[in-house]
Amino acid sequence: MARFKHERLAEQFIGLIERGELKAGQKLPSLRMMSKQQGVSLMTAYQAINSLQGLGYVESRPKSGYYVRRPKQKISFRRQQKLSQKKNPKSIDELVQLVYGTNRSTEYISFALNTPDVELLPATKLKQSILHVNRNRSHSALQYGPIQGIRDLREQIAVLMANSGIEVDSDELLITVGCQEAINLAITACTALGDKILIESPTYFGVFQAISSKGRIPVEVETDFETGVVMESLFEAVEKHKPAACLLVTNFSNPLGASIPDSDKERIVRFMRQKKVTLIENDIYGELYFGAKRPRSCKSFDRDGSVIYCSSFSKSLAPGYRIGWIESGQFFDQIFQAKIHQSVATSTLNQEILAHFLKNGRYDLHLKRLRKQLHTQSLRYQEQILAHFPEGTVLSRPKGGFVLWVQLPPSINTLKLLHLAMQQQLNFAPGQLFSLEKDLHNYLRISIGKPYDEKVEKGLQLLGKLLHSSSE
Amino acid sequence: MARFKHERLAEQFIGLIERGELKAGQKLPSLRMMSKQQGVSLMTAYQAINSLQGLGYVESRPKSGYYVRRPKQKISFRRQQKLSQKKNPKSIDELVQLVYGTNRSTEYISFALNTPDVELLPATKLKQSILHVNRNRSHSALQYGPIQGIRDLREQIAVLMANSGIEVDSDELLITVGCQEAINLAITACTALGDKILIESPTYFGVFQAISSKGRIPVEVETDFETGVVMESLFEAVEKHKPAACLLVTNFSNPLGASIPDSDKERIVRFMRQKKVTLIENDIYGELYFGAKRPRSCKSFDRDGSVIYCSSFSKSLAPGYRIGWIESGQFFDQIFQAKIHQSVATSTLNQEILAHFLKNGRYDLHLKRLRKQLHTQSLRYQEQILAHFPEGTVLSRPKGGFVLWVQLPPSINTLKLLHLAMQQQLNFAPGQLFSLEKDLHNYLRISIGKPYDEKVEKGLQLLGKLLHSSSE
Repeated sequence: MARFKHERLAEQFIGLIERGELKAGQKLPSLRMMSKQQGVSLMTAYQAINSLQGLGYVESRPKSGYYVRRPKQKISFRRQQKLSQKKNPKSIDELVQLVYGTNRSTEYISFALNTPDVELLPATKLKQSILHVNRNRSHSALQYGPIQGIRDLREQIAVLMANSGIEVDSDELLITVGCQEAINLAITACTALGDKILIESPTYFGVFQAISSKGRIPVEVETDFETGVVMESLFEAVEKHKPAACLLVTNFSNPLGASIPDSDKERIVRFMRQKKVTLIENDIYGELYFGAKRPRSCKSFDRDGSVIYCSSFSKSLAPGYRIGWIESGQFFDQIFQAKIHQSVATSTLNQEILAHFLKNGRYDLHLKRLRKQLHTQSLRYQEQILAHFPEGTVLSRPKGGFVLWVQLPPSINTLKLLHLAMQQQLNFAPGQLFSLEKDLHNYLRISIGKPYDEKVEKGLQLLGKLLHSSSE
Repeated sequence: MARFKHERLAEQFIGLIERGELKAGQKLPSLRMMSKQQGVSLMTAYQAINSLQGLGYVESRPKSGYYVRRPKQKISFRRQQKLSQKKNPKSIDELVQLVYGTNRSTEYISFALNTPDVELLPATKLKQSILHVNRNRSHSALQYGPIQGIRDLREQIAVLMANSGIEVDSDELLITVGCQEAINLAITACTALGDKILIESPTYFGVFQAISSKGRIPVEVETDFETGVVMESLFEAVEKHKPAACLLVTNFSNPLGASIPDSDKERIVRFMRQKKVTLIENDIYGELYFGAKRPRSCKSFDRDGSVIYCSSFSKSLAPGYRIGWIESGQFFDQIFQAKIHQSVATSTLNQEILAHFLKNGRYDLHLKRLRKQLHTQSLRYQEQILAHFPEGTVLSRPKGGFVLWVQLPPSINTLKLLHLAMQQQLNFAPGQLFSLEKDLHNYLRISIGKPYDEKVEKGLQLLGKLLHSSSE
């Protein structure tokens, strides 16, 4: 029996749908109506609908409401279990090493790498930029660049940010070694030893150690498959834990693929400012939207520099270049100083190449193509997973970004599955990587960065087979 | 009156020399004899001789002893004062920003940048390597490289290290974003929150925050102008503070330019192993020796992986590329994991360029030339400083590396001097940057990375003038 009210409510609706009492295309009552009819809170009604969406029984149509949707395959409802505590949080480090540590042969199919395949990147155009820089500027590339990063690139990034609704002076930007360094700088700058930092749960593994290696304490906050961090839980956690900062991937998060609705972003910024909690926003996936419009960032609602904004070109242009940036809000001096003792400066050569590439308007064109490709890939991966994974599989439906988050029946242990998969020259990121606190043994993350082809198809089918045999 | 025994002893000798009772070229008694005659400890005798050397009254001749040397100019003895405690250690960060924060016009003369001038770097040959990589491999450069760094470069570095007496498997190396990241990884990997880490005093400013931002505690240990960290003080500090690690620049340190004698390196390695203290060795300047032979590293005496070795190409080949490396001793897994949450991976492009450059034997040739150039520059800078700085100036005489360490009369405040100098389009690194504990208000560091020319000459003369007027 389902433990939570929203689970019981969701099961009721599944019953109605499966018995044909609610038909495909039929509109569901509004949340307010559902709350009244069922005597539950609005929140419970919302969570039930969210589960139904995650399971594929219901779809939302903008400005209209929720509609019944017949799932392509019958996937039975496994209730969202109260997740138990992890026994050995340290094992995340070892897991990371297991998944990402060794060099793979070209035969290997990796669904673990959260990055665009080289085929999706503008290699030829970037080569032209390299030639240009080599011809005109490589002397300067030899020397330490400014600690803050070169002006040319900062100006291009300021333009990029203006296009997404953030007005920023290029003098307030600092170039970093990818987004990961930006996050590290932000943590160092706006928190002190022993401070708590709120993070989404699940979240990507780079965050845990970035926080704890500096003697700060990560505190995990509940999330929703679709809308990311749960507002009420976030606000409660602020009251309860008095954190110094809150670190959120606001758009197309990793591993959930969730995006915080723009109106909630505004609420978060307002709330955090009021509570004097610094918001560290990681918007590394923001440009990779599948829809018509870029989602906003929290930073775009920031009026007084209480949001530190981090992003990079690693998911969209040149992962190997290790170029990211940070808009430091009120913390410019602290971040500048932290940069010196973290890595002194960022590679001048790579900055010059990207500045040239952006200046020539090539990034916009590239992004337009990339978004379409990723959307197509995401859908095709989803289809295969729905077709081949066992009953009880729940799949995220991200509206951008790189990853699919897969919930499997509780009997599946994705770590064991990983070992089997690796024997077959195949890997993925097991759920246990994504939380220090929660036992995510029956989850896994699939990256869709590799263009969908026969090899990918076979890989997903093979995973499905392994899943079927391990659930028997 | 001098406060310390060794200062009183040094003053006695200065009296003898200045009254002509000890003549230039005359041999001094041995340390053992001096200790007997004067009723002081060997250590005191040694410290006195060290002061006399620093002041230019005495020189040491290998395997022979100490001899009187008439200084070129009369520099009076300012006793090494008991350094007082600093009032605001945080000001180091602000100082760093003052010195390194702003972009300088080309008119600016910076004696603060501890790095080779672009004229000393093999720009043309590196351009060829860029072209080669761009032609043959830039596809791979777009992608995240292996977390550990690319094999080609690791192999070249293993060869380089073998040439300097360290046998290492390229699989045990990890490529980093310069030496600074390597130091950060080492600290994260081999120490825990609250642990103490011994460092030389004075030392370069990047170290303090690298340690304290992670909740570790830096403990400063006495040094000698010529031989670096004082062995007895180091050993005492280990007993007293029970540190988890000890971080030393073993060759041509920054800012002292001191090198630990090879026999002492072996003693340090043995002692630290016995006391279970991890030695983090920063050997970034090791290749930049002015003499006939590369000094050894502590790592070359390491038998069981208790030394973590850090270095980079930033002082010798391409500062702006931000490529360093780490040999992690027993800590490979921890360092690998720390790398992931620090910066994920190092720029693939830059690694490929340097691998190609090294493979073609170009680094050796370049180093041979660079060493000669730096040696010449160092001597010419020294001459000018001795000619133009006020009486009471004591100058380091490094046998390699990039920097001169200048002790000025106690009445001089080099921070005030810096403000005056900056108004004249000139800067340097004031002493206060190099210690958290000690008041180094009358010290400064001059980098010799810029080829000696009229501009440099005028800059040093101008500094001399400012010094004279501020000491009046």
